[in-house]
Amino acid sequence: METLLLNGAEVHENAEMAELVPAIEEAFAAYERGDAQMPPKSYIDLPQYNGDFRSMPAYLDAGDWDAAGVKWVNVHTDNEEEYDLPTVMGTMIYSDPSNAFPLAILDGTELTMKRTGAAAAVATDHLAIADATSLGIVGAGAQAYTQLEAIATVRDVETVVVSDLDEERVARFVDAFEGRFDVRAGSIAEAASCDVLSTVTPVEDPIVPRDAVGEHTHVNAMGADAEGKHELADDLLLDAKLVIDDHAQTTHSGEINVPYTAGVLGDDDIYGALGEIVVGEKAGRTDSDGVTVFDSTGLAIQDVAAAHVVYEHANERDNGYPFDLLGLAD
Amino acid sequence: METLLLNGAEVHENAEMAELVPAIEEAFAAYERGDAQMPPKSYIDLPQYNGDFRSMPAYLDAGDWDAAGVKWVNVHTDNEEEYDLPTVMGTMIYSDPSNAFPLAILDGTELTMKRTGAAAAVATDHLAIADATSLGIVGAGAQAYTQLEAIATVRDVETVVVSDLDEERVARFVDAFEGRFDVRAGSIAEAASCDVLSTVTPVEDPIVPRDAVGEHTHVNAMGADAEGKHELADDLLLDAKLVIDDHAQTTHSGEINVPYTAGVLGDDDIYGALGEIVVGEKAGRTDSDGVTVFDSTGLAIQDVAAAHVVYEHANERDNGYPFDLLGLAD
Repeated sequence: METLLLNGAEVHENAEMAELVPAIEEAFAAYERGDAQMPPKSYIDLPQYNGDFRSMPAYLDAGDWDAAGVKWVNVHTDNEEEYDLPTVMGTMIYSDPSNAFPLAILDGTELTMKRTGAAAAVATDHLAIADATSLGIVGAGAQAYTQLEAIATVRDVETVVVSDLDEERVARFVDAFEGRFDVRAGSIAEAASCDVLSTVTPVEDPIVPRDAVGEHTHVNAMGADAEGKHELADDLLLDAKLVIDDHAQTTHSGEINVPYTAGVLGDDDIYGALGEIVVGEKAGRTDSDGVTVFDSTGLAIQDVAAAHVVYEHANERDNGYPFDLLGLAD
Repeated sequence: METLLLNGAEVHENAEMAELVPAIEEAFAAYERGDAQMPPKSYIDLPQYNGDFRSMPAYLDAGDWDAAGVKWVNVHTDNEEEYDLPTVMGTMIYSDPSNAFPLAILDGTELTMKRTGAAAAVATDHLAIADATSLGIVGAGAQAYTQLEAIATVRDVETVVVSDLDEERVARFVDAFEGRFDVRAGSIAEAASCDVLSTVTPVEDPIVPRDAVGEHTHVNAMGADAEGKHELADDLLLDAKLVIDDHAQTTHSGEINVPYTAGVLGDDDIYGALGEIVVGEKAGRTDSDGVTVFDSTGLAIQDVAAAHVVYEHANERDNGYPFDLLGLAD
């Protein structure tokens, strides 16, 4: 038995959204049913390097399949400037739960992007209007690509409006998709008036005002992943049907962390968790709903589910590099 | 930049005890000084598979070097019978603390054995008589080898007595070392009367009675790593100068966990932690000491320190397989 090594390009190739989105939906359902284990993230804080590490172990049982693993991920804010390295890097060990053999070691950076896009798609599927055809994206970085790839699997996206201060990034994004969609640059207001809006920026001062979004827009607030980050105006959050991925994580570091800590927004303003909607315990969008918001922080069960999909897909296609890490190949 | 993959054989080759033992000593010192971070192990319990996973993240700053990483390790008790796999397997991600780049991915199984042997050597160095020449080992499995390799770096071991019910395992052990030491099979009492004794068995009923050990024997109790395990008789533990690696871990799953839980042995019976001795806060062996015992459970800081030594050694010698896991090699 060998361990399959899957680098960023291979994770990218094997994370097919048509398989990944349903797997992430199953992960949210398993978590809600109590068929998952997700110990709190462990943090190692290194202020001397302006950085930290987090370990994110998880197990989930989706019924037809189960999966276990740990993602080891960091945030080192000086990395680009000092080392020409990404701020965030990740490494994932994916194991067979029945005997713990390490089936694969994957680039966790690409995996994180894919599973984040897939979570937005699951939320969009349950919360956007059924005939949504337009998608706005604020922030044209790497996450923008997976938002479009994923959401296009749950709605017939025709028009895409992308907004970013960096014109080069916008041009790259338009280039990448103009064959498949009617994609163009636009203002934040133009993006926000689409049927679906995804925000994927690291801002700390909200950039999407209440009056910019359409009457029935569903917003995926993906950018906030740390204390102080905040993309949407407070009155937009308060007026919306607000759905979260996990209460502990989102109140600590998600989109709502700033107004929640300030007491502007409380538990009564949260409609429910995505898992509750997925299992049918609470309704998704109903005819009376206006704006909906999904506040995504990213859960370890998403990583494990995504690793499962990527590993199975790569293994079937003989992708990746098999390596006898444990010396058990004979 | 590439990530160095180091399989079991390469970890074995590059974990030179002459470098590893001092590094493990530095890790205990850093932990004692407060220059280490070691969040509690996270457990994932899978009773349906008779198994569990643990994630063990850690960081330590030894002054001249620092190191960070996570070990992902399991205990699946049916593995040998059902899957022809080891009960315990481990995978270690070793990262540069300054920018979080994953410098190496290592077989954590071999690494665990090496760092466990090295901890016994550190304890032996501080607690065995200075002119110790005989080493007894109870249990002739894989751990026995690293006990001898490590302890021989801190004392001039001449005679080795190995005791195990399995004669084949004893013969293999004798074969492996008879060129370098006067090594022979013996009873538990013969092993226990040596200057140093290491016990490396998974028993739950003590097999070393009080009267078997010599007057000044230092005992490394390495086997217990779970609730219920227990190698040394209670009166031996109570009569000894008792040194532990970590209070939380040892009272939960170390050699003393059974008598501690039963109330037979309490905090007053524990002399101190190995780290306290290493930094000079408490004395190691003194002339008035008789039997000493080191209760080792194994700490995440040991894994991180061992990964540091193995990586540096392998990197210098161009050992291992460099792999562009993150797609950053260009």
